[in-house]
Amino acid sequence: MNTFGHILRLTTAGESHGPAITAILDGFPAGVAIDLDAIQAAMDTRRPGQGGATSARREADRVQLLSGVFEGRSTGAPITIQIVNTDARPADYEPLRNVFRPSHADFTYQAKYGIRDHRGGGRASARETALRVAAGAIARLALDKMGVQVYAYTSRIGSVALDLPLEAIDLQHVYDYPTRCPHPDTAARMDAVIQRVRQAGDTVGGIVSGAIVGLPAGVGEPVYGKFHALLAAAMMSINAAKGFEIGMGFEGACRLGSEMNDPFTLDADGRITTLTNHSGGVQGGITTGRAVTFRVAFKPVATLTRDYPAITADGTPITIPARGRHDACVIPRAVPVVQAMATLTTLDALLTARLFPA
Amino acid sequence: MNTFGHILRLTTAGESHGPAITAILDGFPAGVAIDLDAIQAAMDTRRPGQGGATSARREADRVQLLSGVFEGRSTGAPITIQIVNTDARPADYEPLRNVFRPSHADFTYQAKYGIRDHRGGGRASARETALRVAAGAIARLALDKMGVQVYAYTSRIGSVALDLPLEAIDLQHVYDYPTRCPHPDTAARMDAVIQRVRQAGDTVGGIVSGAIVGLPAGVGEPVYGKFHALLAAAMMSINAAKGFEIGMGFEGACRLGSEMNDPFTLDADGRITTLTNHSGGVQGGITTGRAVTFRVAFKPVATLTRDYPAITADGTPITIPARGRHDACVIPRAVPVVQAMATLTTLDALLTARLFPA
Amino acid sequence: MNTFGHILRLTTAGESHGPAITAILDGFPAGVAIDLDAIQAAMDTRRPGQGGATSARREADRVQLLSGVFEGRSTGAPITIQIVNTDARPADYEPLRNVFRPSHADFTYQAKYGIRDHRGGGRASARETALRVAAGAIARLALDKMGVQVYAYTSRIGSVALDLPLEAIDLQHVYDYPTRCPHPDTAARMDAVIQRVRQAGDTVGGIVSGAIVGLPAGVGEPVYGKFHALLAAAMMSINAAKGFEIGMGFEGACRLGSEMNDPFTLDADGRITTLTNHSGGVQGGITTGRAVTFRVAFKPVATLTRDYPAITADGTPITIPARGRHDACVIPRAVPVVQAMATLTTLDALLTARLFPA
Amino acid sequence: MNTFGHILRLTTAGESHGPAITAILDGFPAGVAIDLDAIQAAMDTRRPGQGGATSARREADRVQLLSGVFEGRSTGAPITIQIVNTDARPADYEPLRNVFRPSHADFTYQAKYGIRDHRGGGRASARETALRVAAGAIARLALDKMGVQVYAYTSRIGSVALDLPLEAIDLQHVYDYPTRCPHPDTAARMDAVIQRVRQAGDTVGGIVSGAIVGLPAGVGEPVYGKFHALLAAAMMSINAAKGFEIGMGFEGACRLGSEMNDPFTLDADGRITTLTNHSGGVQGGITTGRAVTFRVAFKPVATLTRDYPAITADGTPITIPARGRHDACVIPRAVPVVQAMATLTTLDALLTARLFPA
Repeated sequence: MNTFGHILRLTTAGESHGPAITAILDGFPAGVAIDLDAIQAAMDTRRPGQGGATSARREADRVQLLSGVFEGRSTGAPITIQIVNTDARPADYEPLRNVFRPSHADFTYQAKYGIRDHRGGGRASARETALRVAAGAIARLALDKMGVQVYAYTSRIGSVALDLPLEAIDLQHVYDYPTRCPHPDTAARMDAVIQRVRQAGDTVGGIVSGAIVGLPAGVGEPVYGKFHALLAAAMMSINAAKGFEIGMGFEGACRLGSEMNDPFTLDADGRITTLTNHSGGVQGGITTGRAVTFRVAFKPVATLTRDYPAITADGTPITIPARGRHDACVIPRAVPVVQAMATLTTLDALLTARLFPA
Repeated sequence: MNTFGHILRLTTAGESHGPAITAILDGFPAGVAIDLDAIQAAMDTRRPGQGGATSARREADRVQLLSGVFEGRSTGAPITIQIVNTDARPADYEPLRNVFRPSHADFTYQAKYGIRDHRGGGRASARETALRVAAGAIARLALDKMGVQVYAYTSRIGSVALDLPLEAIDLQHVYDYPTRCPHPDTAARMDAVIQRVRQAGDTVGGIVSGAIVGLPAGVGEPVYGKFHALLAAAMMSINAAKGFEIGMGFEGACRLGSEMNDPFTLDADGRITTLTNHSGGVQGGITTGRAVTFRVAFKPVATLTRDYPAITADGTPITIPARGRHDACVIPRAVPVVQAMATLTTLDALLTARLFPA
Repeated sequence: MNTFGHILRLTTAGESHGPAITAILDGFPAGVAIDLDAIQAAMDTRRPGQGGATSARREADRVQLLSGVFEGRSTGAPITIQIVNTDARPADYEPLRNVFRPSHADFTYQAKYGIRDHRGGGRASARETALRVAAGAIARLALDKMGVQVYAYTSRIGSVALDLPLEAIDLQHVYDYPTRCPHPDTAARMDAVIQRVRQAGDTVGGIVSGAIVGLPAGVGEPVYGKFHALLAAAMMSINAAKGFEIGMGFEGACRLGSEMNDPFTLDADGRITTLTNHSGGVQGGITTGRAVTFRVAFKPVATLTRDYPAITADGTPITIPARGRHDACVIPRAVPVVQAMATLTTLDALLTARLFPA
Repeated sequence: MNTFGHILRLTTAGESHGPAITAILDGFPAGVAIDLDAIQAAMDTRRPGQGGATSARREADRVQLLSGVFEGRSTGAPITIQIVNTDARPADYEPLRNVFRPSHADFTYQAKYGIRDHRGGGRASARETALRVAAGAIARLALDKMGVQVYAYTSRIGSVALDLPLEAIDLQHVYDYPTRCPHPDTAARMDAVIQRVRQAGDTVGGIVSGAIVGLPAGVGEPVYGKFHALLAAAMMSINAAKGFEIGMGFEGACRLGSEMNDPFTLDADGRITTLTNHSGGVQGGITTGRAVTFRVAFKPVATLTRDYPAITADGTPITIPARGRHDACVIPRAVPVVQAMATLTTLDALLTARLFPA
């Protein structure tokens, strides 16, 4: 259950404050040029300590590929991805050894396993997502060959929302903005929300939107392997994700069929396409050839930077004192993770559909 | 990809207007008493032709179990579930042989396979969900032994919403209401919406809410097998589902951490529990012991009962004339399917966690 | 665990004396012409009651395909295969209800499940293999498109062995011989062994050889998905199979490297091939382009037709009286099952390697 | 396809002469004491350079566990196993860059992937099995808690065989013998064979026998998950394995049913058991409670230490000159790998059957 995917399979391991985190990416096609700089650049989009929005933990997050690449190209053998935890501070967590923090996984892991690595959330830490970003960057190198692009961006923080059609979003410059919202005015208002929340020692949630552009029609599997079902599972596996919707999603659920149907038309080349894309690029779980658009809701980070109540394993209420090293808003750092998971899902679906060139 | 689940695995097959639909439920525990009447009663909750809300196709939907049951108890061998299609009318669909209806799977199946059974949607038809309901009813017999209950009910149709806390919902009487909304006033208003939409030859979407009650803490797997990730995939595999959220979901994404955290407390027996349940019963993907609460958004049915535009395979626009035999609102019939998929997901998770008694 | 395969997946269900046996074949490519007569002809090669060698149970074994085929071609949707048990005689087995027969699965199923369908072996009966033969015949229709042929034949019964090089075996006429040994003299001697054993109320084991011809180089997956590892699992899943070897197998294990290496050479078209084929067509788990040759050992049938000792569930020794309706030698009936499992393994491996044309 | 197992899943990666080899062992139960010395001791049984029998490559093979263990106990999180390749000599292999050695995987990997890491066999090297031995040693720590022991030993090298009943084999001292044959006289004769073959610059194959003792009845899954089918796949995934048999295997295939049946009896405690164990501890794929006994045939190593012919990628015949650093007989080093794979298969089967204590 630490493996994601069907043909392209990512298995991850490692704890937040252990010696290293490690992934094995299996099923990746042979012969793809592996650009280490591109992978490292993707890692940097996720790094904490950027702008005012994110936590102060500083990891170089240098990715090493220990197998599956030979003279710059993938060999078809499994690719080992490893990131050494250089900034691990396990001793910091000693006071939390027998403490269950609210809305963390401390209690549930203890209930499940009867033992847990309490240091920094252990296996439940978002540190694990660094491996997803690295794997997603590798998958992107394969998608590039097919002309498929996968984007993600911040579309809401607290009450500030970006509500523009996909065509009006500057998808190429997401990472120029510390909030990952590629719209200057909205980004500024989001920044203000984060600063205000941070000063209050609080945290705030938000929404990440995604778009997969350039996919041919016919990707995705009926019935239980619907493209958006796999995408939903991918997104909901990200720490703090609480909701997923495709196309018009929850809003469309309140509308009429005559409004929501996507009428067919012919494109400039005379091929069948749809006039609108309310469905978000899938019908019956299979892609239509239009952009796949989706949104993922993230709850606010549970670790506050002001004092907050917790409980010990034996049921004694305690107070966790204010500490500084945590995100006030996880959304900017979730953006590359959403992008990575969508990239992995897409390449896996193409491989499953045997649409990736051999 | 026509299989759902990990230990408990449901594989389904069959087309809407073929001779029969068939499922094999594998991994079901041995020794469970199989109550055929209870299974048939579950089927009846999904049957079309109930109240004014649903389509006029009338299938007896008599479930036959062809294997895996011996003298009234499960044997651990795979259970074959079969439903003969007694009301199939394949000839009705001859005019649609080369037609792509908007927001149906006609076009995408053709794109994927280069061939399709056009009759009534073939494999993409919601007819397949009858098997899910039957399998869910079988799974329920096992969950009953553990004191776990799974509920679903209509919480929104068009703009009419039921917005009460779980404790205030009459979960035991959902199926007494044709709308599957167990609140008389709200149900009446939903009925009115459906009638109005039906008279307009249109359709309307809505939301189904679910609750899994009685689960112990510790169910669900990190990292990619989070309980709510599997539940999301289960729900998004249902026809017309477009969104999934757990706990406070999208609404919680706009809130502060100090509001959304669920503080710990002790229950009457001195065991650790949470004061609130904003998380919807999971932390880090593992159950907390509180009710798992979730919501699923469904788009309006794409098949209108008034004339609507479509396109032929060679790109010629046509009009599909008004026909009568279709749902104006799919939500009431989606309720037992949501319940069934949540039941299957829950039993599978218990088996995976080795929490089901051997 | 009632599912075989990775991309092409066969799930079977049903008991020997239940109403029907049913399989769902998922992942089969779309657009393949489905020749029902060819499938039925394959079934007939497995039918009991042929010649003197096999049991007297007579089933028409009429295969019905209930889904996944539309107007004579596969649609890519799962194919339901069903065979009604017309000759079931459950009452015959009443005396065996609480009896464990030696070297049957009675005791082990009871130990595992605490309940079992005792009638004719229930789920453990070789009746299940009828579905494999039907599914294999469908898979063969796809392999035919790629010029790949899969053969099986009897190479040993008791002490009588056929020990000729593959080139000298008349693979096209296997089913003309009741023993499935396509060599008149050897077949006659095998027949004599079977008659002698039958008259003694005893049973006898043997070996089935297989050959997969026409596979390109490059099929099979490292490391745990080696072609011959998957083939071994396929073969060892057949009732009564006790051994598997590929190429020179056990005999080659006693030889020198200088004898067993297969030197390279060029074929008539200047392509690299091997001079010998001691490896049986695989190196490192991946096909070389030479014939894949293998052998499967089957123990003698455990059900004797003379009196034999058994034990009741409470530990009382009893004698099972002589009965007539059982095979003296299972090998002839195992031949089409070996062929079917090799066919399914091969098509699955081609699909996994993305070598099957989309 | 680089993953082994169902609930307990071992994924391996890494090439023979890359920086490191890495495995992730997922699904391992929480709370098991992890004895690093025991794991390292198991590694040492596989190390090359022992006695005269094995190759001269010298790796410390120091195992590092980078995750999943906390304060000496397993946490239920995936365990990362890593071994740094300290004795890698990639430059040694430069002359083989475009060469296909006979009966190696050079040609087939090139055919499959169009690219390969030629250094020391790359991914196809037996170096990968070091990870299996480490993982097997970890799995053994869990089996110890259930009183299950897994043994392997050399039973044949060339024409010298050890042919004693299991009871007469000194299973506790296998690793005291460089040949891994725990019978002094036979071991001495095997040693002589290896020396003779080595001096001739040749190699020789053999057979490894295994025994799983202490398993309860009821382990293994019908129909495609038979215990011995999974064991066969496990064994055939080992480099150079060419045959597998369980119980009387190929020899039993030539015998009569009246000879091969295992009559039931009662043990000292009045429980049902069998008088003989011709079946090798399984019936219908499920364990009987008797020892599971099996044998694995290995071909002679293909890398000779005298000159031998090969071919270049463009079809030119060449001669590979004599080199020293290779095994004359792989059997002694295969013993711990067979033991490890049997251990992993057994723990996985116990977990699948939910027989491992939670």
